Amino acid sequence: MPTFVPPVRDMQFVIEEIGALDRIAALPGYGEATRDLVAAVLEEAGRFGAGELAPLNPVGDRQGCRLDAGKVRLPDGFATAYARFVEGGWNAVAFDPEFGGQGLPWLVATAVQEVWHAANMAFGLIPMLTQGAVELLSLHGDPDQKALLLPKLVSGEWTGTMNLTEPGAGSDLGALRTRAVRDGDHYRITGQKIFITAGEHDAAANIVHLVLARLPDAPPGPKGISLFVVPKFLVNADGSLGKRNDVTCLKLEHKLGIHGSPTCVMAFGEDEGAIGTLVGRENQGLALMFTMMNNARLAVGLQGVAVAERAAQKAVAYARERVQGVAPGRDAPGPILHHPDVRRMLMTQRALTEAGRALTYFTAAQLDLARHAPDKAERAAAHALVDLLIPVVKGWATANGVTVADLAVQVFGGMGYVEESGVAQHLRDARIAPIYEGTNGIQAMDLIGRKLIRDQGAAMDALLAAIDTTLAELAARPDDADLAPVRHGLAAGRAALADSVALILRAQAGDPAFAGAVATPFLDLTGVVAGGWMAARMALAATRRLAEGAEDQAFLAAKRTTARFYAEQILPRAGGLAAMVAAGAASVTALPADLF
Amino acid sequence: MPTFVPPVRDMQFVIEEIGALDRIAALPGYGEATRDLVAAVLEEAGRFGAGELAPLNPVGDRQGCRLDAGKVRLPDGFATAYARFVEGGWNAVAFDPEFGGQGLPWLVATAVQEVWHAANMAFGLIPMLTQGAVELLSLHGDPDQKALLLPKLVSGEWTGTMNLTEPGAGSDLGALRTRAVRDGDHYRITGQKIFITAGEHDAAANIVHLVLARLPDAPPGPKGISLFVVPKFLVNADGSLGKRNDVTCLKLEHKLGIHGSPTCVMAFGEDEGAIGTLVGRENQGLALMFTMMNNARLAVGLQGVAVAERAAQKAVAYARERVQGVAPGRDAPGPILHHPDVRRMLMTQRALTEAGRALTYFTAAQLDLARHAPDKAERAAAHALVDLLIPVVKGWATANGVTVADLAVQVFGGMGYVEESGVAQHLRDARIAPIYEGTNGIQAMDLIGRKLIRDQGAAMDALLAAIDTTLAELAARPDDADLAPVRHGLAAGRAALADSVALILRAQAGDPAFAGAVATPFLDLTGVVAGGWMAARMALAATRRLAEGAEDQAFLAAKRTTARFYAEQILPRAGGLAAMVAAGAASVTALPADLF
Repeated sequence: MPTFVPPVRDMQFVIEEIGALDRIAALPGYGEATRDLVAAVLEEAGRFGAGELAPLNPVGDRQGCRLDAGKVRLPDGFATAYARFVEGGWNAVAFDPEFGGQGLPWLVATAVQEVWHAANMAFGLIPMLTQGAVELLSLHGDPDQKALLLPKLVSGEWTGTMNLTEPGAGSDLGALRTRAVRDGDHYRITGQKIFITAGEHDAAANIVHLVLARLPDAPPGPKGISLFVVPKFLVNADGSLGKRNDVTCLKLEHKLGIHGSPTCVMAFGEDEGAIGTLVGRENQGLALMFTMMNNARLAVGLQGVAVAERAAQKAVAYARERVQGVAPGRDAPGPILHHPDVRRMLMTQRALTEAGRALTYFTAAQLDLARHAPDKAERAAAHALVDLLIPVVKGWATANGVTVADLAVQVFGGMGYVEESGVAQHLRDARIAPIYEGTNGIQAMDLIGRKLIRDQGAAMDALLAAIDTTLAELAARPDDADLAPVRHGLAAGRAALADSVALILRAQAGDPAFAGAVATPFLDLTGVVAGGWMAARMALAATRRLAEGAEDQAFLAAKRTTARFYAEQILPRAGGLAAMVAAGAASVTALPADLF
Repeated sequence: MPTFVPPVRDMQFVIEEIGALDRIAALPGYGEATRDLVAAVLEEAGRFGAGELAPLNPVGDRQGCRLDAGKVRLPDGFATAYARFVEGGWNAVAFDPEFGGQGLPWLVATAVQEVWHAANMAFGLIPMLTQGAVELLSLHGDPDQKALLLPKLVSGEWTGTMNLTEPGAGSDLGALRTRAVRDGDHYRITGQKIFITAGEHDAAANIVHLVLARLPDAPPGPKGISLFVVPKFLVNADGSLGKRNDVTCLKLEHKLGIHGSPTCVMAFGEDEGAIGTLVGRENQGLALMFTMMNNARLAVGLQGVAVAERAAQKAVAYARERVQGVAPGRDAPGPILHHPDVRRMLMTQRALTEAGRALTYFTAAQLDLARHAPDKAERAAAHALVDLLIPVVKGWATANGVTVADLAVQVFGGMGYVEESGVAQHLRDARIAPIYEGTNGIQAMDLIGRKLIRDQGAAMDALLAAIDTTLAELAARPDDADLAPVRHGLAAGRAALADSVALILRAQAGDPAFAGAVATPFLDLTGVVAGGWMAARMALAATRRLAEGAEDQAFLAAKRTTARFYAEQILPRAGGLAAMVAAGAASVTALPADLF
């Protein structure tokens, strides 16, 4: 079984063709992101991920993390690998050079992060959470907070956490009860938080907790929540570490997967109250938190892509070496790779993984445009697309992560069910992504409510128009044996999506349960069609490169075949999903609650 | 969180209305199976399952089994519970009274077994494997084998195993290498078998291994395999236990789930050769094994239903008690059960579980008819339906088991990912069922090849005709607000299935890869439509009972609502699946093998 092979060529292809690297590199501040530099960064990231992180992945799964007297030990090798990760500058790729970052586009940073998650998803969570803290403080921190915290967080010497969830406040953060009391120029925080990723560990000198809490005089519900920075060690004015803050890890969760990542129950202020400083203004915490959620949700969607890539690689390797049965058209037993039903599984993995990667990178590129495009209208258009696509990437790509890992277990057959083969770990790891950072049900409601109904379909119309552009390009090649079915499938999917959109905008006004009842099939539908659009665009790009006489003909031809598979074997789901939306809430909500 | 509540009322409803208990009880030999007796048996089974087996389910998951010097210890409590199980006569429900069985119909035994699997799937595997051994020896054993082994296997004092798989022979049993050499009136068996469920344990006085092996002069491939009985302890002519046979458990697998079930690597004949007796004739082992596979595959499909039932119960209980957010049309936070998106998950669980149960029991009833109907043509028709539906039940109901358990994890949100909540166990347990007893890919190939193409669609035509009968009954009630959409959905699904059947029968001749490439969506399609047929029949039966003034109105009304949900939210998948079949093998097999 080969170890993880970073899909660098695929990443580059998507960065260049779907992310439109040249256009991103032309944005102010991104001039360094040339094709050559990006290729070099990806090669190097791939080497680090495959060489240092991937071998630790099964170690983390087997050992898990250990809590002893408030100290958390990561699995063997994790702390050392993290030190090398920081040393290599990997934590700083996308951040502002003002604080020590390398200032590369999110498009590129997204690809780099895919390597970490694919190599070792549990490890990848540490920089992912730190990234959230950097984003948040960069946007909303005061100058002191930025100066004291950002350089260390950007380098990765310190790590960050997000302390949102409480036992009674998960999807409904408005219900949270952690208290903050003013005490001079700072606040004293008291309360318990659960599901805190990397809340305590031994890989960094300090941990910067971002904590949602409620002031005594705050209004009830979501408008009474404030955001605080609560470092594990207080930070002196000169940047040196001060005394230990009143923050403790009480317990580690015993989870289905990502055993290498410590999921902590955190106690704030069990003694004198944890010292924190306010971020932004009082009672604006939830709004501030939401401004960084786009990025975090994109990162979780990316985990879905990454774990899919890793699991699919294992499935292919196994299908290549496992000899069993005589495939059609052959006369002797051979590798199961040649059985059409196994091929279907491998092609499904490939199509979903590649389309998910493309959609995730595309969204990251829109994020770059939304922030750096010189033209205001262009920024606004990109921003609208980001907002629309984030819940789709999060919901659809994480569901695909589970699907693809599940298929990998199935390709392995009985061996897949045996933990030694290592493939079940990916299924267990993948399963968290549809849950955290807002469950996929929450994503679906966000998509249909805030992203579709609120603007009456304006952002969705832009997406549909973009799909139409691709359809027109496909229509220009009616005799192409791969592109013709791609066009056919995408056109049908696009029509199903447009029908659903029109129906939702018409129907939801009359029935308060309607949007919630159809939200999930609508998200799936949007994902399936957007993925089909991505597959089509990759096929068109490959066709163009082939016509230009590109060298990697087999690689490019595979993109065309994969797009056709997507159109013929994945896009047909769209019609059924649209029918589910059209059926509305009736049978979803009809059963009286006491009959369940 | 309540413990497991056996769905006795649902089981009775399905046994009576879908399994047509009255008709089965009218068959020769089944006269005792009255409605009252069946109700009493189910109540008692439910009490045993909920009271004795369900509490051991998390124990088995946490402890697993232990191997020490060749001896396997089941998790705490399992051996005692098994002794009570045997004492209560539960092992003998469906078996021939000649050997101590109770001679109840498979229809009833299937419901009883659902209780064991739902309460504790790992425990349920012990009687399930013994059942396979009983079936096989009843059909193919010689008089001595029957007399010596069956009474103890029927009572459950001894348990049975199926020794098929070897490291190089899984789906392709023809490749197996275990050797058998004639030695007087018996045989000496030498070789290693893997994935042997309950191959060794401490709950029974003896274990009867049924072992596939190859004689020295046997033809190569599947036609050179013979079947042997190899008991752990040799059995003297008077039925007493003799010396220990040369069979050892070398290793227990560390699995994703069903930790309470010992999955053994078994060594036969490490010393002098394990002593075995031949079952049937030499070189006919595989054919004999196949005659009992129908039953085993039905049992695995039933596990899918059972684990779905258990997981769905947990999801409902959690959704009822977990307060989070304000549901549409309400003005205060309440249980998540009221959120439409959660409702969708719970209704999906309910619809898939109930339809799967109905299809499984229906198939079991056909098995009874195939064996006991006085009329030869009726037996043949039932037999053809059993053969057609077995791979569908196995493939579709086990896939649904995973889907429903996965949804349960999602309903629990973050808590679902934490092992303490117990819901993740069901997902881990459920995941084996699509793999063992022939992977679902093997089932799909069996369905399309042996069950559809071989008889040129004759059995399938009978199924379609039966669906038409149901459609006609629905058509007689055009104004019924629930039944009208049920009819609409089922008619569309039926049309999609019929189209696919016609297309497959036309297309497969020209392309050897075609059947394999479309087998999986075709099985899914058949399952979705057959499940919709079951849901419709349950709704019609409920409607009739309601018109007759039945007492349990809410229960019956729920069947109508659930059928409508199935028609509106599950059957729409049929069109897409038919489109995947119609697209054929092209894009499934087009990618050159070296490009994966």
